[in-house]
Amino acid sequence: NVGITSLILSIKLDEVFLNLFLNLFFLFPHGLSEALSWKKSISKQHSCQKITNLVFFYLQGWVRSVRSQKEVLFLHINDGSSLESLQVVADPSLEKRDLTFGSAVEVQGKLVKSPHRMQNMELQAETIRVVGPCDIWSFPLKMKERHPLEYVRQFPHLRCRNNTLGALLRIRSEATAATHSFFQNNGYVHIHTPIITSNDCEGAGELFQIAVSWAKDSAEETHFFNVPAFLTVSGQLHLEVMAGAFTHVFTFGPTFRAENSQSRRHLAEFYMVEAELSFTESLQDIMQVMEDLFKTVTSTVLSKCPRDVELFHKYIAPAQKVIISYSEAVEILKQAPQTFTFKPEWGCDLQTEHEKYLVKHCGEVPVFVINYPYDLKPFYMRDNEDGPQHTVAAVDLLVPGVGELCGGSLREERLPFLESRLQRLGLTDAYQWYLDLRKFGSVPHGGFGMGFERYLQYILGVDNIKDVIPFPRFSHSCLL
Amino acid sequence: NVGITSLILSIKLDEVFLNLFLNLFFLFPHGLSEALSWKKSISKQHSCQKITNLVFFYLQGWVRSVRSQKEVLFLHINDGSSLESLQVVADPSLEKRDLTFGSAVEVQGKLVKSPHRMQNMELQAETIRVVGPCDIWSFPLKMKERHPLEYVRQFPHLRCRNNTLGALLRIRSEATAATHSFFQNNGYVHIHTPIITSNDCEGAGELFQIAVSWAKDSAEETHFFNVPAFLTVSGQLHLEVMAGAFTHVFTFGPTFRAENSQSRRHLAEFYMVEAELSFTESLQDIMQVMEDLFKTVTSTVLSKCPRDVELFHKYIAPAQKVIISYSEAVEILKQAPQTFTFKPEWGCDLQTEHEKYLVKHCGEVPVFVINYPYDLKPFYMRDNEDGPQHTVAAVDLLVPGVGELCGGSLREERLPFLESRLQRLGLTDAYQWYLDLRKFGSVPHGGFGMGFERYLQYILGVDNIKDVIPFPRFSHSCLL
Repeated sequence: NVGITSLILSIKLDEVFLNLFLNLFFLFPHGLSEALSWKKSISKQHSCQKITNLVFFYLQGWVRSVRSQKEVLFLHINDGSSLESLQVVADPSLEKRDLTFGSAVEVQGKLVKSPHRMQNMELQAETIRVVGPCDIWSFPLKMKERHPLEYVRQFPHLRCRNNTLGALLRIRSEATAATHSFFQNNGYVHIHTPIITSNDCEGAGELFQIAVSWAKDSAEETHFFNVPAFLTVSGQLHLEVMAGAFTHVFTFGPTFRAENSQSRRHLAEFYMVEAELSFTESLQDIMQVMEDLFKTVTSTVLSKCPRDVELFHKYIAPAQKVIISYSEAVEILKQAPQTFTFKPEWGCDLQTEHEKYLVKHCGEVPVFVINYPYDLKPFYMRDNEDGPQHTVAAVDLLVPGVGELCGGSLREERLPFLESRLQRLGLTDAYQWYLDLRKFGSVPHGGFGMGFERYLQYILGVDNIKDVIPFPRFSHSCLL
Repeated sequence: NVGITSLILSIKLDEVFLNLFLNLFFLFPHGLSEALSWKKSISKQHSCQKITNLVFFYLQGWVRSVRSQKEVLFLHINDGSSLESLQVVADPSLEKRDLTFGSAVEVQGKLVKSPHRMQNMELQAETIRVVGPCDIWSFPLKMKERHPLEYVRQFPHLRCRNNTLGALLRIRSEATAATHSFFQNNGYVHIHTPIITSNDCEGAGELFQIAVSWAKDSAEETHFFNVPAFLTVSGQLHLEVMAGAFTHVFTFGPTFRAENSQSRRHLAEFYMVEAELSFTESLQDIMQVMEDLFKTVTSTVLSKCPRDVELFHKYIAPAQKVIISYSEAVEILKQAPQTFTFKPEWGCDLQTEHEKYLVKHCGEVPVFVINYPYDLKPFYMRDNEDGPQHTVAAVDLLVPGVGELCGGSLREERLPFLESRLQRLGLTDAYQWYLDLRKFGSVPHGGFGMGFERYLQYILGVDNIKDVIPFPRFSHSCLL
């Protein structure tokens, strides 16, 4: 290892040379990206210990703090790979005017065991190069200041430089990977369900319509696809197509609602994880997948970014869960000592206030509510053929603080039931293709969707949904 | 194992009971989904060998063929988990009128070593239950018929039942998972770049605009977001935002073009893999990641679905690659013995015919073309400051049969260069936020995008892009 040091020191230390050298010397099969990710991992404590014998080190990142003392210059450099920054110790002679908070730097030096208890390693700088200065007077983030989330939300192009958003984005990235892995490990086929669709899954009105930007009137607007086209509100029906050929399918993509809402719970563009399971005849199976998905993804996130999750401090593993029927839920609400804005009544939708009460009533644990009124739910949910309180095999998962996290159902696989229901709704022509699926080897099946942003809000205790998505879109706001 | 058999046989053999039993007995930590995926894997030959000692078996899937002989009834059942179907051998007394091609069935029986050379295992049925009959007279797919892709494309809700599309969707799913893994393993942070955007990355005109479906005039249409909003054509600029806080970021999502094209190479909605790398100063780094991504994903697909890929038969690992500059490319084209529809000229875009010739000229291998004319490329590409033939550090990867597979560049990280270029284009106000990124710790960086459908076309040799996406959208067509 002395060899490495002297070899590096003997070559011209410009970054191209050094990158080349690292590539050649360590023979990273994935080239520079791997070398970089290896170098990056230095700022993670557990990796530091492994390479204490590598004396010479090369760090790239952004300055999080500068503290100049008489004898020594302290810097903290962060490269986005972890919440922690690496402390750099340098001779005051290396200080430059543009070496400020927020600037991008490349530091070369020796990685040594830190004498401080709070950190494992520190870098004794030999050269510091400012590759991108930062105009600190106009930079909206200030050194060592704890900016409120509402403040940084005004700067969608810079807020990822904030600790909280950085941690959130790392967690979101890990949760995304874990979601893909969960379904892949369980034999699901991933389907890219379409974003632009001529169908309207929920029968709801709050749709974004697609137009070509040069259209002059509505005739021209629908001209491109020959039919009116909308942004998807759910991939479910398209997943059901695929559930006719694969027994387990899932999708994980953007969905859209043109809801004119400024609430902290709604976005115009958000991500949904949706799954369909063929040959499934009980809601229990659907609930089991919801629970497994939640537990697997969450435990992965906890193990991969413990420090990032710690920053939010809110996650407590739910010790248990409760399953109640919609009818039981209404009874609980009717017997509640409090009065609700919306009077609980069998046949009416559960409001946010009701969901909150139910979760509280059950002891602030996740609550599955099953078997909703037939007339309340969309045409594709499976008729329970019960009565006089006619219900369908639907399930919602309510969680503390967030409300509805997942919604699912068994799907009506029986052609006559579906035909008569679509007929009554006047939708027979529009859903001829959906009826077709029941004519050619239909199977009992069911599925669910999970709001990915709500999932992140729940596990992290983030109050506003706008803070768990990289670029929030909502009514009156489409920044960048 | 005799115990298992007798135990199963002694309980009522309805599927709920049996599922419950399998869950309890084998203690699948992920519950039914895992049990199902374990059961599913039976149709894969390599798994069959592992469980020959499990005598009793439960199969769910769709009938691919029925052949009734005097003494025996043969079925082939497919559950979508592999190209191969499992052969079921049954007593002719088990035949029913609705046990037809296309119907959905549940078969219980004994799994035994097959006497036939062509297959490993077969299922000796004891019960056969048709859970979903298939109206074969109106079912557009016919037994043992090789339907042309053009034919099945007419039935977007049923074509996944076709062998070729089924294989394609499994491959697409594996390639999707492998893409996520590749970037995650190399330290990239995944970012959900927005679908709805008020920016127009390429400066091109072919955009889809977003309107609310109840809008009466254009004022009301832009009302929702307060600004005109479009479907994204690229996540690059948003990735660049993130590249200011994380050294490696990627996105993998839908992008859109309102191109009125009926070509076999264009879709209105398609998927792009895009990456940005900070602290990168050479195109070589970008090309390396393109190459690594391609190789890693392809080798994963080859190892995970060898039989599915075999169906397409086209993939030949590219033995080598070639790197040429745009200027060299133009020289090659000028000296070509053939005449082109578009005369090759320095400063003009390379046309499809040119790309084809270059790939052929280089020996039908992948060709990187680097350093394109300054005036041909968007404002964000890095000025090479050369002359008199002024170029930018851009790179395209051309591949046989498909043409441009990847496009990337170093990004202009220097504020004065970017300011003067945006000023000349009259875009300074629109891209103030992008200029901001160069004021607060800018770093040399670059990135690229890869068309995911083109990638699939290339490795599989699929001619028409509509056959590598689950639900194709193009001008005059938005089925389902």
